Amino acid sequence: MEGGAAASTPTALPYYVAFSQLLGLTLVAMTGAWLGLYRGGIAWESDLQFNAHPLCMVIGLVFLQGDALLVYRVFRNEAKRTTKVLHGLLHIFALVIALVGLVAVFDYHRKKGYTDLYSLHSWCGILVFVLYLVQWLAGFSFFLFPGAPFSLRSRYRPQHIFFGATIFLLSVGTALLGLKEALLFNLGDKYSAFEPEGVLANVLGLLLACFGGAVLYILTRADWKRPSQAEEQALSMDFKTLTEGDSPGSQ
Amino acid sequence: MEGGAAASTPTALPYYVAFSQLLGLTLVAMTGAWLGLYRGGIAWESDLQFNAHPLCMVIGLVFLQGDALLVYRVFRNEAKRTTKVLHGLLHIFALVIALVGLVAVFDYHRKKGYTDLYSLHSWCGILVFVLYLVQWLAGFSFFLFPGAPFSLRSRYRPQHIFFGATIFLLSVGTALLGLKEALLFNLGDKYSAFEPEGVLANVLGLLLACFGGAVLYILTRADWKRPSQAEEQALSMDFKTLTEGDSPGSQ
Repeated sequence: MEGGAAASTPTALPYYVAFSQLLGLTLVAMTGAWLGLYRGGIAWESDLQFNAHPLCMVIGLVFLQGDALLVYRVFRNEAKRTTKVLHGLLHIFALVIALVGLVAVFDYHRKKGYTDLYSLHSWCGILVFVLYLVQWLAGFSFFLFPGAPFSLRSRYRPQHIFFGATIFLLSVGTALLGLKEALLFNLGDKYSAFEPEGVLANVLGLLLACFGGAVLYILTRADWKRPSQAEEQALSMDFKTLTEGDSPGSQ
Repeated sequence: MEGGAAASTPTALPYYVAFSQLLGLTLVAMTGAWLGLYRGGIAWESDLQFNAHPLCMVIGLVFLQGDALLVYRVFRNEAKRTTKVLHGLLHIFALVIALVGLVAVFDYHRKKGYTDLYSLHSWCGILVFVLYLVQWLAGFSFFLFPGAPFSLRSRYRPQHIFFGATIFLLSVGTALLGLKEALLFNLGDKYSAFEPEGVLANVLGLLLACFGGAVLYILTRADWKRPSQAEEQALSMDFKTLTEGDSPGSQ
């Protein structure tokens, strides 16, 4: 049963995926370079604790979350259950790394006596985090935990895909807001003098937007979708023995 | 021929569209309220000229651009050519209003001697504007101007839809960056004291993100798409007499 739908990979897909990964790795490296070159680097037990926040968020909620969405396109000919587990695992890594980033900023604020959750960036961030958690739990309950009826799974699936893409895009938007906030706090008037830090961070912002666009393109291109037959088999055959009575007759 | 594909409207679609319009109108009203209550209102020949910028951009590149994307869902049973012309017209209105907003900010900067185009908001804004212009010209050349071969039209159509949605989302993101910039410039330290203006603007920011999400949901829901037959007819039958040799045999 596993790997039954051996569809071929569309010719252009690998190039687009490679380009998205190049963008993703560049933006992680550039975030590191920005923090290292202009913000003093990263350390947990000092004023540099704050810097763990942008790095963790870019790695977790942008790069890894984006890659988790691409798993079904990249491993389109692999076993569905394996792909599904990889999708869940990447999202767990993303969640844990984002949690570290979240602790870093709240801990830093507490030590410095700064107010929490007053800015638009923080409001969007909390919204992303709550939605991400709900999406993870719902996805786990419907698709990985045994027992969810097939009809419920297939009705929830389009919602899961839509909210997955939306949460990812909101994460990118929130990262842009955070970057902007950091620039205005740190550079002040020097921002308008085209300081190297400002230009580097602007380029980083454009790269963030481009990565979001590239992931969205790969995800939404109709002829690159995983064949629906394979999807249906994945939905109905996982934990087959437990949900057998609920599987469609065609199985 | 016109209006030939009389598909019925999905039950839930009107409610979602009504909700999106409520969101859109609320965010235009709230932008006006923010500028009127806290930023002194709008006037062209004074320091208030800047305030024309956020209002024009929210009306043009967010509300009207979003509505232009929804035209094919809302008027799914109307004549295709009418829908297409309405789509183009809404985008012209959006473009003209956005141009006024763009002139307002550049003129204000010139009078004040402020530096142009140094911030991430402005870089994203210019990117949006260039993409929007290219998309408009390409859409006009392929779909409204007579003579584009049917094969080219149908190959360009998915790109037009993807870039349309992406430019809209980037517009929403750019508006969020601009709002954040205005808050940090105007409120400074008072932002963290939960000043009413800051809270109002944060809510406005969330509304902007929600409007983007609502439009994206209506646009991407598979069972709400305009029946593909109607689309194909629209593509091949507009200016039928001029492109006849290129239309598919089924016509």
